Amino acid sequence: MTETDTHEQVAQSNRAALRLANVDEAQRNAALADIADAIRENSEAILAANGTDVEEAEAMLAEGEYTQALVDRLKLDEGKLERIAGMVESVAEQSDPLGKTLAARELDEDLELYKLSVPLGVVGTIFESRPDALVQIAALALKSGNAVILKGGSEASESNRVLYETILDATADLPEGWATLIEAHEEVDRLLEMDDMVDLVMPRGSSEFVSYIEANTQIPVLGHTEGVCHVYVDEAADLAMAEDIALDAKVQYPAVCNAVETLLVDEDVAADFLPGAVSRYREAGVTLRGDPATRDIVDVDPATDGDWRAEYGDLELAIKVVADVYDAVDHINANGSKHTESIVTEDADAAETFMTGIDAASVFHNASTRFADGYRYGLGAEVGISTGKVHARGPVGLEGLTTYKYCLEGDGQLVASYAGEDALPFAHREFDGEWHPGHLADE
Amino acid sequence: MTETDTHEQVAQSNRAALRLANVDEAQRNAALADIADAIRENSEAILAANGTDVEEAEAMLAEGEYTQALVDRLKLDEGKLERIAGMVESVAEQSDPLGKTLAARELDEDLELYKLSVPLGVVGTIFESRPDALVQIAALALKSGNAVILKGGSEASESNRVLYETILDATADLPEGWATLIEAHEEVDRLLEMDDMVDLVMPRGSSEFVSYIEANTQIPVLGHTEGVCHVYVDEAADLAMAEDIALDAKVQYPAVCNAVETLLVDEDVAADFLPGAVSRYREAGVTLRGDPATRDIVDVDPATDGDWRAEYGDLELAIKVVADVYDAVDHINANGSKHTESIVTEDADAAETFMTGIDAASVFHNASTRFADGYRYGLGAEVGISTGKVHARGPVGLEGLTTYKYCLEGDGQLVASYAGEDALPFAHREFDGEWHPGHLADE
Repeated sequence: MTETDTHEQVAQSNRAALRLANVDEAQRNAALADIADAIRENSEAILAANGTDVEEAEAMLAEGEYTQALVDRLKLDEGKLERIAGMVESVAEQSDPLGKTLAARELDEDLELYKLSVPLGVVGTIFESRPDALVQIAALALKSGNAVILKGGSEASESNRVLYETILDATADLPEGWATLIEAHEEVDRLLEMDDMVDLVMPRGSSEFVSYIEANTQIPVLGHTEGVCHVYVDEAADLAMAEDIALDAKVQYPAVCNAVETLLVDEDVAADFLPGAVSRYREAGVTLRGDPATRDIVDVDPATDGDWRAEYGDLELAIKVVADVYDAVDHINANGSKHTESIVTEDADAAETFMTGIDAASVFHNASTRFADGYRYGLGAEVGISTGKVHARGPVGLEGLTTYKYCLEGDGQLVASYAGEDALPFAHREFDGEWHPGHLADE
Repeated sequence: MTETDTHEQVAQSNRAALRLANVDEAQRNAALADIADAIRENSEAILAANGTDVEEAEAMLAEGEYTQALVDRLKLDEGKLERIAGMVESVAEQSDPLGKTLAARELDEDLELYKLSVPLGVVGTIFESRPDALVQIAALALKSGNAVILKGGSEASESNRVLYETILDATADLPEGWATLIEAHEEVDRLLEMDDMVDLVMPRGSSEFVSYIEANTQIPVLGHTEGVCHVYVDEAADLAMAEDIALDAKVQYPAVCNAVETLLVDEDVAADFLPGAVSRYREAGVTLRGDPATRDIVDVDPATDGDWRAEYGDLELAIKVVADVYDAVDHINANGSKHTESIVTEDADAAETFMTGIDAASVFHNASTRFADGYRYGLGAEVGISTGKVHARGPVGLEGLTTYKYCLEGDGQLVASYAGEDALPFAHREFDGEWHPGHLADE
């Protein structure tokens, strides 16, 4: 692919986006159903291509280049393919994120402003190893009316190509270019430069990978680099509840970004709380490190400064004793990643201090940090989790792939009438109503 | 200022932001009232400082370095200062953008999720010549609970310093560092690198200036580079209405971004429409250029390819005859700046084709493009106009300076209970309610 080719592909995505924005919900859902069917029907070819990828990856594993985890993520089977097809169908079942009236306001008589949800336009996505990511992102983009540019990892290139062709064949009725697969690494760098033609980039992969993308593009990025989450056990905590939450937040699934990495314990309850909690962590195989005050109570390895900002992503945990809830808030604001933070307490004032004082996407009271997830939040299909603050924050649903458009219906109004000495006043009256183009003329 | 100094200033802004986020509405509004009073009381010192700036600017004008327009924008007088003080008071009167419950959802019994509006954190702003911009942006930031970093143009340095000191003296009760003035150009470059500490940058100035900022920072930018807006006169237009709208959109205030730059006319009505419209434009002193089909009907200079993407910002207009509404949509999508586009027609289908087919922040039917403005839209104080698609699009009110935070209230729930074979189901029931920390424990 030359530079001109990539540019022409992205220009075609732009043209497709303009048309896809006006493809109605029924047609988008029918296309998603066709994709699910096509994945099932084409399973033999998909699994054969995946077999080639897995074979190469296993050779790289033998040479120590790849990890077993990478090979596991790469590998598809009949069961996984069925789950992928089912996921596409569940995206179709989501309520339509497009055409929602977000606000309707009468500016003056027969001058009505409607704020409507519309697709962003062209979304790019760059992901590592998992071939299911390609299908999921294509489905989310289609549901939300966005053209999509897909770039997978080279280790999954055969799987990705067959999955992409399966999707394209199943959606021949959609605007040409609605989904584009790019394969060469140079194409990614060119894509990242096209901030005038790509509206959003969603990288999926390691923290280093997402940071690299963020540092190398002017395109807005939706994603998260890390999750350094905390559980704080307040002096007024129900200690049995605190033990359960602290354990669930670490061991229920330690590899994910909403798992706890540092446990903070109020000094007034540390001696009562820590021995029991540490014993349960040990039973669960968790490696523990603590600050000096923690080590005065329980026998754990010493924590170093690096531990307070570490995202272990594994059965490892740092423990720190703090003076009070304010000390906990300060520690978290200084060391956390603004992802998800939880306080365990029976004291409403302490809960308020913690939840209003911490700058994070999600702040919890008496619940495990692991609840920070689009599905659990009831957002439906999850587009990603964002630790950025603009556009979308925390778990992001399909709404994160939309923007809005103001539609103004008038009957010939001029701004000159609303300016100067005899300026007409504005009404600015909110009302319930849907936009129907031209309805003022029909009245 | 050394690099360390700038870093420490911005770090202080971050600390101030955490505290300002919890300053209640009454205190923020009282501080705004104090700022307005202080500007009135300190008018002599402000006007004296401004006099120094104006004197220097007039010397630069004489040397041909500055334009008269710049000197005019720079100059303050008693009347302008009173309007600035009044503007600060009107920001105080806006409804509070913080603490709004954007959604409340019961995930399960006694597990309630609230989505609350909160400040972004630290907003940076870089503006040219107008000293009123400093006051306006500081007021908007304070109202929305954001710490603000202000950088004005060197031509207004004396005015800006006195205005800044007036604001700081009037707000001694607010967290230290809530507003910071930076003065040296090197500091701007360092600020633009601090994407981990600054949440949003709002540049105000020329198109080149905004483009420069966008190209030189990883911080999200709220602003607009240009406004190439169109009015399309459809074959089914009321031609008298079309003439009024086309004229208002150009001449009511030609220097602003929502003024029309290219007039598109359907070929079926061009011969009827153009002679009258051109005559009125000429009376208003508008310089006209047209494509060959336009010039077959009226005697105007030829337009070149550059005219179709020109933002004249003046009494100049390009005119093009198009085949139909689809041709108009294609021309606008190819040449417009996604700002504001208007169709004049009595045909509801043509209006719908135009408004759904064009990718722009604002699409109008039978109204002047000049209505695209935060005040006219009823958004209250206008933060800016954005031609970006993420976070905020089109005219942006105080809401554009906020993000949201998810607050989850539980009574000890664990994710393990909602996973695996005996997983509890989620309720995901929306309800009307406000977040009260700890209220589940009180029941």
